[in-house]
Parts: sequence; structure tokens; C-alpha cells
Amino acid sequence: MQPEKKILLSEKEIPRQWYNIQADMPNKLLPPLHPATGKPVVPEDLMPIFPLELIRQEVSQERWIDIPDEVANKYRIWRPTPLIRAYELEKALDTPARIYYKYEGASPAGSHKANTSIPQAYYNKVAGIKRLATETGAGQWGSALSLACSFYDMECIVYMVKVSYRQKPYRRSFMQIYGAEVIASPSARTQAGRSVLAVAPDSPGSLGLAISEAVEEAAGREDTNYALGSVLNHVILHQTVIGLEAKKQMEKAGDYPDVVIGCCGGGSNFAGIAFPFLQDRFAGRNIRAVAVEPTACPSLTRGVFAYDYGDLGKLTPMMKMYTLGHNFMPSGIHAGGLRYHGESPLISQLYHDGYIEARAYNQTEVFEAAVGFAKAEGIVPAPESSHAVRGAIVEALQAREEGRAKTILFCLSGHGHFDMAAYDHYFSGQMEDTPCEETELAANLADLPKV
Amino acid sequence: MQPEKKILLSEKEIPRQWYNIQADMPNKLLPPLHPATGKPVVPEDLMPIFPLELIRQEVSQERWIDIPDEVANKYRIWRPTPLIRAYELEKALDTPARIYYKYEGASPAGSHKANTSIPQAYYNKVAGIKRLATETGAGQWGSALSLACSFYDMECIVYMVKVSYRQKPYRRSFMQIYGAEVIASPSARTQAGRSVLAVAPDSPGSLGLAISEAVEEAAGREDTNYALGSVLNHVILHQTVIGLEAKKQMEKAGDYPDVVIGCCGGGSNFAGIAFPFLQDRFAGRNIRAVAVEPTACPSLTRGVFAYDYGDLGKLTPMMKMYTLGHNFMPSGIHAGGLRYHGESPLISQLYHDGYIEARAYNQTEVFEAAVGFAKAEGIVPAPESSHAVRGAIVEALQAREEGRAKTILFCLSGHGHFDMAAYDHYFSGQMEDTPCEETELAANLADLPKV
Repeated sequence: MQPEKKILLSEKEIPRQWYNIQADMPNKLLPPLHPATGKPVVPEDLMPIFPLELIRQEVSQERWIDIPDEVANKYRIWRPTPLIRAYELEKALDTPARIYYKYEGASPAGSHKANTSIPQAYYNKVAGIKRLATETGAGQWGSALSLACSFYDMECIVYMVKVSYRQKPYRRSFMQIYGAEVIASPSARTQAGRSVLAVAPDSPGSLGLAISEAVEEAAGREDTNYALGSVLNHVILHQTVIGLEAKKQMEKAGDYPDVVIGCCGGGSNFAGIAFPFLQDRFAGRNIRAVAVEPTACPSLTRGVFAYDYGDLGKLTPMMKMYTLGHNFMPSGIHAGGLRYHGESPLISQLYHDGYIEARAYNQTEVFEAAVGFAKAEGIVPAPESSHAVRGAIVEALQAREEGRAKTILFCLSGHGHFDMAAYDHYFSGQMEDTPCEETELAANLADLPKV
Repeated sequence: MQPEKKILLSEKEIPRQWYNIQADMPNKLLPPLHPATGKPVVPEDLMPIFPLELIRQEVSQERWIDIPDEVANKYRIWRPTPLIRAYELEKALDTPARIYYKYEGASPAGSHKANTSIPQAYYNKVAGIKRLATETGAGQWGSALSLACSFYDMECIVYMVKVSYRQKPYRRSFMQIYGAEVIASPSARTQAGRSVLAVAPDSPGSLGLAISEAVEEAAGREDTNYALGSVLNHVILHQTVIGLEAKKQMEKAGDYPDVVIGCCGGGSNFAGIAFPFLQDRFAGRNIRAVAVEPTACPSLTRGVFAYDYGDLGKLTPMMKMYTLGHNFMPSGIHAGGLRYHGESPLISQLYHDGYIEARAYNQTEVFEAAVGFAKAEGIVPAPESSHAVRGAIVEALQAREEGRAKTILFCLSGHGHFDMAAYDHYFSGQMEDTPCEETELAANLADLPKV
């Protein structure tokens, strides 16, 4: 038999602390600003929708933050996730590179999102909250929060962008199995929803609007809070469990990555795998971190580093981040989880400071990579995750051209079992590449808030 | 933290031999009979559609059969699968029972079926075969053979029952990602298909007909063989890798099952987990093996032990097995993988001899169990596998009533990610229970071949 393909850890090796990169990053984050006053946000501003512990984590400068036992006990349902050596893909690419992937699709919800939905539900539960409201587009985040609420016996209300609600009925079914209430957005249930329906009864909805509906639901009820699946510091903190495990696993494999790769929308899975390795880089170790985004929504590769709103409705704080402008409406690519105009402030600052590289790929080349990966390694990746697959293949082919070995690590953030319509579209030959247009981008960037 | 939930093995602990129960079963199998002559089948009869090594395995009386290195190297892509202690389910049921499940949905194809598709493809490949033809109903078997053919760079032709082809387009997409050619059956491509289309152009197809089409395709071309996903001895042999791993894992957990449970259609996953434990029973150890089937297709609980054809078209050998009659058409329950009129001859003989128990459940109670399981343990089970979940829950509730601990092991043979329409149907409140009717059963049993 060949050497081990899967590098496993025991449950005892689940990290007992998350890594907070705020303690080590050379340039600190600029504060979020209140959307109405333009003044730095204070914890009290966030208390109607978040529990205190998550607000603390959002601003903490401590390097290590303890993972509560009750969270670790839920993590152990599927964690540690395997680190897999892609021997079969390496052979198919005929590359001297060693390729490893951390498989987060092993979570019952199907993606890395459960790494943060579990602690978010937990901290809300102990704060006495009985219901969590959120939004979902592609559905990975809604599924993960539904799972977490089921584990902690809480109610879960998911505002699902109406076009996705219609196009992806099985994502909705999946959330309902966990007991979630899934509502098509815009809905008549919130002021935000009603005001849109009044003027556009057939509105397909948008992620920005679904956020507004979920926030309104959370702000309006004592027993209800809001939960967000990416972008924020505490979300990214929770995701570092990915990279912390991967470091132990690379050590077991007797190897260390030259490059770490993740797909990047709001940035949580990329940060999750990359940040623990960036800690080594701050200490002088030579390692590259590459964020991969779609050409249709290229916030890092073509956006600007500026204060902007997190949502279309300008209800969320303004954050200093790479952005395409809060009005930017990316084309309807299948990687719905990467269709966000902005970028995590943490990733943005580190990218600005030169610690992170970024690449953008078209969706046809991303699906080509996904199919090649599935045929070799068996796992069918989510369209979002397939961006990382593409990034890894590009690095591996480069290694072949240069005739030198290198070690590539990427995060396979989720499986594509609910994305068959996207694969059908790819095989139909009708899939188009829709890179973001220069004139549209310029118009949106001209509309950034003046801070 | 609580004790370990997942009992893992390293790849070095993947079994290197399959267990052949034919060596140990007290009463040997009666031979299959040629459908035309009624005489015992000889190996030459099978050579147009199976490679010699699989024919040898079909009749072998050796207790242990080596797993080729090339097969073990593919198994390691996802094996060993985890044995999971269902702490969360135990808590939800408030039972003193210890419940373990072996999770075969961890395979990239989504079920245990890959345990046999890999060796079947391998033995065909080394025999010089370039194409494999098969049939699929629910799609788990077609997916697994597509995966295996992709791994060994062979062509895969899947005749998919037309009604499933239409109702489950995403199963088809999934197979196509692995490069399979998926054909709706009845098709104009075979004599069997054309003769049905001539009289019934709108025929929804049936598994029996799809088998005939696939066998015809295999018999008609030198470079093409046929592959079957259950029932036959060599298929069940390959599946014993499940139970062999589970035995090692139970030992690691310091426990041993009082009862082993699997869902049962053709019988391959039930036999896969149960047979290695039955070896202990033959040696005097006290262990129960329970096969769970749907009331809509109750071959063990209400069938007879008799020679019958494996297919509607009477093209396959007659086998001595529990059967509802080859003309039996089960109602359209969602557990498509359990809609088979017959039963593996090995399981049938052992059931007849008292080594196996059987239970039948209605589909609404099966889905109720599935939803409860998903909410507690996270994993959403396939409708077929949910029968085993129901069986385990019934045993656990009995333990609670009796106030005594016992150890329950079941096989969770696959995930339900492609079965959301079935869950929707359950939640709609429209799902009906359709136990097999006495008069229909009697009519079919009256039509058994006279041997």
C-alpha cells in the first residue's frame, strides 16, 4: 500500500483555543464607524443583536481565546476534519508538487460554516437568547446555523434570498430537516421587506435586503439575536480552528506548506486556514497565503481599500475594507457564497500590508478544475470551494513547468451536493464568464461614503 | 470534554482480506439454476458478462480472500470509515443503551456501494475490460460505479429507470461529473428497451428492465462487462470490509454489540456489517443480527424461501432466496434501494436457519426516525439507511423500558443529500404508508417457477 492519504487527528487534538490574529498583525484595524453618526462604534451599539461574549471577541487583542468545553463537545461530532494528501490529483496533473487539502465539507452541514455557527449559537444560548435570525444566499451559512440551533435546542429563522429560495428548494428542505423556519426574502414580516414589496412585489430579493430583514427581526425581539456567517472578526476567530488543526496535521506529515490557498468571499474560510500560518510568517517564516476570488466579484484584486457599508441598505457599520462599493451587484455566478461586495477587515488590512496575495478566476475555468478534482479525488466540491481547487492546480502546474517540488495546502471548504444545477449548467456548454465591468465598477466606487 | 465520539482507524488498519461467510455457514447455498434449462449454472455461463476473478469469488469456499493492493489503495481515499458513538441520540432518547453507527456515507459516492464498485471495476480492468454497464434506480449504485470507473479510467454506462431519471435529475448530474453516460431506461439502444418502447412508448421503466438493458449491452460487446450492486455473493463479500472494520473499532471502544442492525433490500450493507459478527456467533458468541426492510417490500418478513428469478424478464439465473415473486411491483416508496422483490441468497439461507432476525417498518415512522437522528447527530440519512436508524431507535427504546443497558450497532449506509424531495414529501404530511397487500402477494407467489 501507498503512504497514508488522510492525516487524521484524534478528538483530543481538537484545538482548545482559537487564534486571534489581532494580537500579532503589524498594523491594527481601524475601528468600524456608526452608519448614521460616522463615529466609532461602541459595544452598546451592538448589544441589541449580539451577545456580550461575541462583542468582546470582536474587539479582543488577546492572542488565544479559549474554546468552551460545550463548543468543543459539539465540534467533536465531526472535527478534527481530515487533511488529505491529493496523491490522485498530483498524478493526474503530473506535478512534482505535494498537494494537501483540508476537507471542511466533512461537517454535517456540508461546509466550514459550522465552525462558527456552533459557538455563535452557544454564546447566545448562555446569554438567554432563544431564537437566532440570519440571512442566507447560497445556503451554506443558513444550513450551518440551522444545525447549530438544532444542537442547542434554539429556534432558527433564516431569511433566504427569494431567487435562491425558488432556485434551490433542496437547500431549504435541508434547513427544515434541522427544524429551521425558512422565509423567502423580501417578506411581509418585516418593515424592510414590506417596503420593498410595496414597490416591487416580484422582487427577487438580495443578500443586502435579507440582512436587513434578519437584523430587524433580531433588534425587535428581546429573545432573538442576529448571527452573521463571515466578514466579522469573531467569525474569523472561530474559523482558525481549521488552520490550527492543519498545522498539527502538516507536522504529522513531516511537511510544511510553501503556499496556503483558500477561496475568498467574505473571507472566513480563507482566514480560517491561513491565519494560523501567517502567525509563523510574522515570526519570519517563508510562507505565501493566496486568496482566490471570482472575476465577477473581485474585491481584493480590483476593489479599493476604503470605509464602506456592509450592506446595500447602509444599516450596518462602515468598515475599512477592500470593497467594490456597497451598491455593487455581482453577476449571477454559481458561487453565491463569493458574491459579496466587500471583504473581511482583517484580511483587507493584511492584504493591504502585503501579507496576502490574491487571484481572480473565471467560473468556467473554476468548474473545469472542480470536475478534474472530482474525477481524481472523488469529492465533488462546492462552486465556492472550487476556486481554491483552481488556485491549487495553477500552483501545481507552475511547479511542473519550473520542475521543482513545492508544498501546496488548500481549504476544500464544502461539498457540492446541493449544487448540481450549477454543474449541469457547466456541462451544457452555456456557462458564461462575466468579469466585473470597468465602467460599472468605477460608478460604484465613486459612491463610497465620505469619511 | 466528553469521551471520544468517533472511533477512528488508520489506513494501515484497512482490512487486507474480505470475509467469506460461505466457509462458515452451517448450511451451504443451493446452486443458482440456469433460467432456460433449470440446471445448475456453470462458470462458463457467466463469462460473457463477468470477469473470471469475480466468478471465482462468487463460488469460493475460502474463508479469507485477499484484497488487492490496488483496491486497498482506492479504499484509502475514504476508508476506514468512522464508527461513531451516538451520544447525542442516546441523550435525546433518554436510553441506557449504547448506540454506535458505522458511517458509510463518508464515501465520496455517498454510500457503502463504493466498497464493491471499486473491486468490481478493478477486476474488470485487469481482465482487459474497458467499459462497464449497469442499472440504477435510486442512484446510489450508479454513483458508486461511476466513481470507480473514473478512478480506473474506464467508461461507465448507467441505465437509469426512466421515472428516476426524470424525478432525480441531480443524481444523474452527480454521475455525469464522474464521466458516466447515463441513459434513461427503457431506451432505444437495446432490443429489450426497444421491445418495451414499441408497445409502451411512455413506459416509466423498472429496475428489472434496466437490468435487462445493461446485461444486453454487456453481453453484446467484447470490451464491455456488467456490474451488479447487491444480491450476489461476490458483492456481499466486498461489503464485509464494513463489519471487519467495525469489529476492530468496537474492540477499541472496549465494547461489543448485543445487536447489529442494517437496512435490507438486496442485502449488501446489512450483510457487510453483520457477517463478520455472525462469524463470532457461529463460534458460540451471543449476538443478534437484525435486518430492517420496508413494509412495502417485505421479502424476509412476508416472502417465501424458494427458487425465483432475479429479474422481471427471467433472464437471470434462478436463486434460492426469500422472494415476493419476480412479478412483485412494490409501491413507490422513497427508499428506492429497498424496492427489490428478492433477497441475497446468503442472507436468505442464514435467515432460514435462524441466524438473522427481520423487522419491517412503514415509511412515515422511518422518516420520523431519520429527522430525529439528523437533529441529534447532524447527519441527514438516506431513506434506505433510515430503516436501520428506526431499527436502532426501537431497540434503544426497548432498553429504556426494560431499564437495562445494551450495545446497539447499526450501519448508516448513506447520506440523504440527494433525497430532499423525499423529506419534503414527509414534511408535507402527504406521505402514505403502503404495506404490501395480501392478495397481491399471494398472486405473485403463486407464479413462482416450478423447480
